[in-house]
Amino acid sequence: MALMEFHVITLFPEMFESPFRVGMVGRAIEQGIIALKTHALRPYGLGAYKQVDDAPYGGGSGMVMRPEPLAAAIDAAMEAHPGLWRVLLTPQGELLDQPKVRELSERKPGLLLIAGRYEGVDERARAMVDQEISIGDYVLSGGEIAAMVIIEAVARLVPGVLGNPESLAEESFSAGMLEYPQYTRPEVFRGMKVPDILLSGDHQKIRAWREAEARKRTAERRPDLLVRPKR
Amino acid sequence: MALMEFHVITLFPEMFESPFRVGMVGRAIEQGIIALKTHALRPYGLGAYKQVDDAPYGGGSGMVMRPEPLAAAIDAAMEAHPGLWRVLLTPQGELLDQPKVRELSERKPGLLLIAGRYEGVDERARAMVDQEISIGDYVLSGGEIAAMVIIEAVARLVPGVLGNPESLAEESFSAGMLEYPQYTRPEVFRGMKVPDILLSGDHQKIRAWREAEARKRTAERRPDLLVRPKR
Repeated sequence: MALMEFHVITLFPEMFESPFRVGMVGRAIEQGIIALKTHALRPYGLGAYKQVDDAPYGGGSGMVMRPEPLAAAIDAAMEAHPGLWRVLLTPQGELLDQPKVRELSERKPGLLLIAGRYEGVDERARAMVDQEISIGDYVLSGGEIAAMVIIEAVARLVPGVLGNPESLAEESFSAGMLEYPQYTRPEVFRGMKVPDILLSGDHQKIRAWREAEARKRTAERRPDLLVRPKR
Repeated sequence: MALMEFHVITLFPEMFESPFRVGMVGRAIEQGIIALKTHALRPYGLGAYKQVDDAPYGGGSGMVMRPEPLAAAIDAAMEAHPGLWRVLLTPQGELLDQPKVRELSERKPGLLLIAGRYEGVDERARAMVDQEISIGDYVLSGGEIAAMVIIEAVARLVPGVLGNPESLAEESFSAGMLEYPQYTRPEVFRGMKVPDILLSGDHQKIRAWREAEARKRTAERRPDLLVRPKR
């Protein structure tokens, strides 16, 4: 049995066909470490046309997703896969960050990601989920690609998915700062040389330089990270 | 000719096969309003094994993407498609938000999105791009899904892609606040009723209620949005 299951309720299951066939997540699925399953929302639509949305009460442009098809799809998924943590992807949700990704990675047996169209989901659908998450302050057409972000971010924290678990510790945001500058071969590229200190072999100095560079870069690019409370 | 082109340099072009075949972006591609083209990075790799990464100078876990294959891929794409705005997806970039999405949508003829693996890209590769963007404070395996986020967010601002342009104005973050609660049929769902005011037909009152609810929700869930400087 997989260590972590990802289920997605979506109007567009076919969107998920290609992104997780390759790379780290693809390999983990092949090895059975994680599982990914889409649940088509359309069959739970209403009437002959399998309607899933309708005009908003009170007027306004755009359509709103009706609660019944979502409820029926969630109920069916939860009955077949009990215990999933239900997450609605919505611009109104909590902003995803790495501590939240870590929390999500501990929600066993896995996640039920509900991808609404982003025009809007009936307010009462919120009563049917455990958490609402936004991946960022921008507008997408639907929650599908947001669900992919969560799958990829969470999957790499599942034991055995990442080749080298040491990498986890050093990464951006794991330490609340941006990462230090990275260099690899060649030593000179288009006139730009690798900093001497990285070639010095002095690991203490290298460590100090990297810490200073990470702090400097964070201060320059993302000063908000430095004042944010640690969690 | 397409109004907006999206190009992606990636080790995994096949990841992009399915997500944009359907939905709003799929339709816009079919209609020729936008164009999406992937550029495989692997052929620009070095030596018999088409190597694209190497160990970091100064030590540390993980591999770092070498600058030469990225440079060669970028050069080739820019020669074939002059004028593209080069964006490196990286956790060290500017945090994407809706104003930045809008700026990106004005970068004609389009974007060249460079999806590095997230372990790290040689610092000197940064000299070859116009902008570095992060989609959020979490760690992904690579820039591919981040590129998809940008494509979907930007595409819907291209004229003709969104069915109803009025929707653009009302959305979350367009106004710097979360959206008000949305309701559609049925009037009662699992004992939860649509607020009376939305059934009143009094458009002035409905507008006032929605504004108050949007403000309340933003204060509760995302107080940071209220203190953030308007752009």
